Amino acid sequence: MNNRRYAIIGTGALGGFYGARLQRAGREVHFLLHRDYDHVRQHGLICESKDGDFTLPHVHAYRHARDLPACDVTIVALKTTQNHLLPDLLPPTGAILTLQNGLGNEDTIARLTRPDRVLGGLAFLCSNKIGPGHIRHLDYGHVALGEFAAPDVTDRLRQIGTDFEQAGIPVQLAENLAVARWRKLVWNIPYNGLSVVLNAQTDELMRHPATRQLCEAIMREIVAAAQACGVPLADDCVPTMLAYTDQMKPYRTSMKIDYDEHRPLEVEAIFGNPLRAARTAGASTPLLETLYDQLRFLNQRSATA
Amino acid sequence: MNNRRYAIIGTGALGGFYGARLQRAGREVHFLLHRDYDHVRQHGLICESKDGDFTLPHVHAYRHARDLPACDVTIVALKTTQNHLLPDLLPPTGAILTLQNGLGNEDTIARLTRPDRVLGGLAFLCSNKIGPGHIRHLDYGHVALGEFAAPDVTDRLRQIGTDFEQAGIPVQLAENLAVARWRKLVWNIPYNGLSVVLNAQTDELMRHPATRQLCEAIMREIVAAAQACGVPLADDCVPTMLAYTDQMKPYRTSMKIDYDEHRPLEVEAIFGNPLRAARTAGASTPLLETLYDQLRFLNQRSATA
Repeated sequence: MNNRRYAIIGTGALGGFYGARLQRAGREVHFLLHRDYDHVRQHGLICESKDGDFTLPHVHAYRHARDLPACDVTIVALKTTQNHLLPDLLPPTGAILTLQNGLGNEDTIARLTRPDRVLGGLAFLCSNKIGPGHIRHLDYGHVALGEFAAPDVTDRLRQIGTDFEQAGIPVQLAENLAVARWRKLVWNIPYNGLSVVLNAQTDELMRHPATRQLCEAIMREIVAAAQACGVPLADDCVPTMLAYTDQMKPYRTSMKIDYDEHRPLEVEAIFGNPLRAARTAGASTPLLETLYDQLRFLNQRSATA
Repeated sequence: MNNRRYAIIGTGALGGFYGARLQRAGREVHFLLHRDYDHVRQHGLICESKDGDFTLPHVHAYRHARDLPACDVTIVALKTTQNHLLPDLLPPTGAILTLQNGLGNEDTIARLTRPDRVLGGLAFLCSNKIGPGHIRHLDYGHVALGEFAAPDVTDRLRQIGTDFEQAGIPVQLAENLAVARWRKLVWNIPYNGLSVVLNAQTDELMRHPATRQLCEAIMREIVAAAQACGVPLADDCVPTMLAYTDQMKPYRTSMKIDYDEHRPLEVEAIFGNPLRAARTAGASTPLLETLYDQLRFLNQRSATA
């Protein structure tokens, strides 16, 4: 019998969505909340989804991490801009799966706990929190999951994958989490960065030859940085990503949405940490560095506006 | 007796200002106008200036270049975005002095005429055209003038310098015009570029460590590009420019003003031509290239908005 117990740290657009799907599929899920605690405790969670709307009138809601029961898997779904809170939020036992953006989150959690407790995942999800305890799932949703310290797919990883699959979430089990992370950065760095700096959607960036060429140049730089870091990313992921983006519907990136909503940008996770990793490995990344500098400027001005 | 006759091609914030000052100082000046022709022919030119306001009720105004009399010196004061018009505007005789921004204007004019007819100048001028034939001079105004094809200061150059000086314009005679042009690019590329891309004034760019460092990195790249092109620009111009900018009043760059006014940006003269020169010389300029791509995107979107 499957009675794995999950905790969700950060019940927003991401944690709220996956947590609600796991609970609907019969898993026991415990949600940590901050601002929405009172509302969710009273009214539960609402998930509008292209896969079908549903409501969970009753959920296990908590205001303080210390009140959570021991769980088999704790899913970290905070924005990385909140990572300074992690020392007070991570549980003393169980596996910890971070579904956060960018690079370095597994390392942070491993330093705060133990490497063998850590798993990482990439969420390819387009969703928003549109009110307290109210998630709107717009598109996609699949995840790639991998072990942080183990060199391959473990039983634990397979079991978590099964729980997600049973919750209707397509899962890919990654043998090499670092490859998956850097591969996502190859997309996120040019499109998240330029969408904010140039106030543009993906289709506009692809249409003008100057920005199309700039996106491609940034992608090549990131692939070379990954390779310098010892991550075996294939060169052909650049044309693949470009073709994929050409076929996408016009898309406002998640970082652009954060910027438009005056929320802090995940600049360090998506830009700063890859830059520092590349620098340590001796790779030159002037385009990444330019975007990083431009975004830090915009992020601070947005915060003080 | 000094009776040098001047023509002004492009009677805007720049050509209108210098032409009016030369005429007020007693030179004979002929103004080519386009949109403002009727108004200026009737009402002349008004110059509001921090050095004292003045009006020229009568000026020699022309609608067509072919009607201009033969002049000793033709000053090209068009925006470089209008350079495609030059074949029809340049006179068959006399010296031609371009006071335009960026790189490559002397080469363009030399190709269309003859190298020994060409002089170049840099205008350090802050002025706007605020109405037909109505110039507002806000700050600065000095020029650096140099021969294009001759290796040093000629009599002709000295005479033009004297006319400007008598018109109250401080003049520096440049022995090496290329050094002067690249030196100005070291400032113009980071501040014009980033002011548009990041919607920022100079003081904001200097205040945030990320953009300050980015400005400095761009400057170093431009100095290295100039050196690769055989232009003996000193490395210490980078700290000099940074200190100079620190001491400036908060400044909205001319390219930012153009952008805010939805006018075409001088992207090719200030970014594209230096980039191509650097590339030909084998210099790597990824930061310049990034700005160039970003500005081309913004420039086109602004043009079609």
